[in-house]
Amino acid sequence: MSTEADVLVVGAGLAGLSAATHLRGAGLEVKVLEARERVGGRLLRRSLGDGHWVDVGGQWMGPTQTRLAALAQELGAESFPTYAHGENAIEWKGKVKRYRGDIPRISPAVLLDTLQAQRRIERLAKQVVLEEPWQTPGARELDSQTFWSWLQANTRTRGARTLLEIAVEAVWAAEPADVSLLHVLFYTASAGGFEQLIGTSGGAQQDRFVEGAAALPLELAARLGDDVVLQAPVREIVHARDRVEILTAQGSFVGRRAIVAIPPTLAGRIVYDPPLPGFRDQLTQRIAQGTVIKCMAVYEEPFWRAEGLSGQGLSDRGPLRVTFDNSPPDGRPGVLLGFLEGDQARRLGRVDAGERRAAVIDCFARLYGPRAATPQDYFEQAWAEEPFSRGCYVGFLGPGVWTSFGPALRAPIGTIHWAGAETAVRWNGYMDGAIESGHTAAEAVIAELGLNIN
Amino acid sequence: MSTEADVLVVGAGLAGLSAATHLRGAGLEVKVLEARERVGGRLLRRSLGDGHWVDVGGQWMGPTQTRLAALAQELGAESFPTYAHGENAIEWKGKVKRYRGDIPRISPAVLLDTLQAQRRIERLAKQVVLEEPWQTPGARELDSQTFWSWLQANTRTRGARTLLEIAVEAVWAAEPADVSLLHVLFYTASAGGFEQLIGTSGGAQQDRFVEGAAALPLELAARLGDDVVLQAPVREIVHARDRVEILTAQGSFVGRRAIVAIPPTLAGRIVYDPPLPGFRDQLTQRIAQGTVIKCMAVYEEPFWRAEGLSGQGLSDRGPLRVTFDNSPPDGRPGVLLGFLEGDQARRLGRVDAGERRAAVIDCFARLYGPRAATPQDYFEQAWAEEPFSRGCYVGFLGPGVWTSFGPALRAPIGTIHWAGAETAVRWNGYMDGAIESGHTAAEAVIAELGLNIN
Repeated sequence: MSTEADVLVVGAGLAGLSAATHLRGAGLEVKVLEARERVGGRLLRRSLGDGHWVDVGGQWMGPTQTRLAALAQELGAESFPTYAHGENAIEWKGKVKRYRGDIPRISPAVLLDTLQAQRRIERLAKQVVLEEPWQTPGARELDSQTFWSWLQANTRTRGARTLLEIAVEAVWAAEPADVSLLHVLFYTASAGGFEQLIGTSGGAQQDRFVEGAAALPLELAARLGDDVVLQAPVREIVHARDRVEILTAQGSFVGRRAIVAIPPTLAGRIVYDPPLPGFRDQLTQRIAQGTVIKCMAVYEEPFWRAEGLSGQGLSDRGPLRVTFDNSPPDGRPGVLLGFLEGDQARRLGRVDAGERRAAVIDCFARLYGPRAATPQDYFEQAWAEEPFSRGCYVGFLGPGVWTSFGPALRAPIGTIHWAGAETAVRWNGYMDGAIESGHTAAEAVIAELGLNIN
Repeated sequence: MSTEADVLVVGAGLAGLSAATHLRGAGLEVKVLEARERVGGRLLRRSLGDGHWVDVGGQWMGPTQTRLAALAQELGAESFPTYAHGENAIEWKGKVKRYRGDIPRISPAVLLDTLQAQRRIERLAKQVVLEEPWQTPGARELDSQTFWSWLQANTRTRGARTLLEIAVEAVWAAEPADVSLLHVLFYTASAGGFEQLIGTSGGAQQDRFVEGAAALPLELAARLGDDVVLQAPVREIVHARDRVEILTAQGSFVGRRAIVAIPPTLAGRIVYDPPLPGFRDQLTQRIAQGTVIKCMAVYEEPFWRAEGLSGQGLSDRGPLRVTFDNSPPDGRPGVLLGFLEGDQARRLGRVDAGERRAAVIDCFARLYGPRAATPQDYFEQAWAEEPFSRGCYVGFLGPGVWTSFGPALRAPIGTIHWAGAETAVRWNGYMDGAIESGHTAAEAVIAELGLNIN
């Protein structure tokens, strides 16, 4: 006894739900098979009471993320600016300072060095062939080195390397040694610039959603109704010409096409019958997810605002490298957000929860004063521990992967198509990219089924 | 209805079978759960008729591989020297030349440059802390760059870079951009030297087995008898204090400990309940298998021998980069062996079989003359296509992995222990290392169960 549909979508994250919605709009029957007991994937919110929410997963919307903005508008999801008034805080070489605007109060030599490196990245990123990064001029050389190696050769100061390391951690939850230079350039191009990646106002961290970004997949799923099947981890995909059968913990589903909308590393864990070509399988062995623990401390009010602080902070010591004011729109309660990223998350992910909390709170207190030391509440989300995410923010490509395996990332295999933020051309790794990837895969399926019907 | 044993071993490769044999020697009951309908993992042989065999998987034994030698002796597996008489062939810059000994007839500047780079590798490798490479002095810097970057900085000639690229391909079936410098140094130290890795006489390619290396796991499995369960791919491992249940296609197995003796990337595809810690899971996302297609052409006789050629060849053009005489001990039939490795395997793995064969045979013919163009038989083994290997020779670590995730490679998780060539301290990636890893895991389990019994 199988459930039938035209198209089966694996994963009820933003990519899968966008694909399913698009397919249904074209008159096709869909079933979305979701492993968890909830939808949203890497989008997840937590109630603060009184109708206030914070996202413990992805949360921000930036300018040029037109697909995300359109979806938010369609679903009636209100957004508001990330709090960015007053001065920012920086802990640098053992001292905490305040500064206004984008430029921290540290050595001008370091700032100039950092700026020059960023400009070089921007310039190199302009060469990237976005749809096919492996076709970028000099791709082989760009892809054969880590971003760490590039930093060694293209900065003169240790401070600049630290600032750019913090940027890498903030964007990929990975270290400069983990990512290939070509991947950094691709991602920069995909977002439209390096400032776009790291910026708050004017960048990817510009706006938040009143009810949380996680409200978007919830609403999409609500509209899809029974076509979203929860607690249905996929065990196996049996695929043939014009027929796909997916075996899940909730039984068998049969369709004409499948869209697998989960991170590549997780897609590689599904059993395929017949087995996928080695070229595709080996790609999935080579796109690891980043490592992040998203930490929030809750206070009666955002006390730092009264002291003229934005809650945006930076630390060379860590373990939090970047912080934000993550309070609800009305500032009640006050919420400080900090990220453990890359190696900090790998290290602190293995210690006792109390020790980790103490290290996080201590960092907040150094940046925002003693009141930060006594939050009303503290919570965190360690995405590497989640069996159906196994990391955040995103899968990244290390050296050699784009140039040796790039074409396998998006190419469908028979009746199986791929989606997910990692497959996006624009805003790869972001919600906007996830939506794009869902639409792209849905369009491809619609075209194929259209051709078959005629 | 579950089958019970003291210890459950996942994977009937050399590591798993060695572990099981060792455990049984200590009086413990074992079950070895093997996904395939055969044992041996990356060891597989093919009959040439008349009792002659060739290995289409791992095949060589080198000096200092004492565990492999001991096992061969115990099982009565005879070995013989890899054919290495006469002159070697090299295709270099469009010309084919012959040379005697280890030093190809190419520019002395290139040879000197190569030798100096090798010496530097040897010198750096001496610093490696073999059991814990992340503790190596300067580990972070060594692990933050690709071997490609190191080659750029430490060679003066393009020729040396090509020769060392061929060496990397021959050792890992990967490209210099794929592997971290620290991993190259670890592997060199693990084998006892760079020459040990790449050499024939005196190195890892020194000897072959008369009935194939694949005869070893076959004999081990024969002795284990019914304790090896074939066609039992593992779906899930449910683990608790002192109890492990493994769900397979052949039913459920219950034991007190498990040893998972498969490559890390495949171990990451098993469902664990409770889920494994993120630190371990993310490690398995970061150890990809190499890419190799092992190609053999069969001739009535090894005609190249009569022409004074050893069958050992090298080509800067490829697609085969290294070749060997792989004939049976009596030279009947004659067998030429060539490897498509790294990018050549990734590229030619996606073309039509006839086109691939033509490219391989053409390469043999350029190196060994027109008679090589008309083999009696041709066959190949593409390891990336194998669902239960998904690559060969071995899993390798890219930049950042040893220093960020190294401790997760061997550390048991509760009742689950890890084995497999990738976990070995000495001769990591080789048969000898696989045996070591099986013994190490078995010893750890024996110690744990011993303690529990007292």
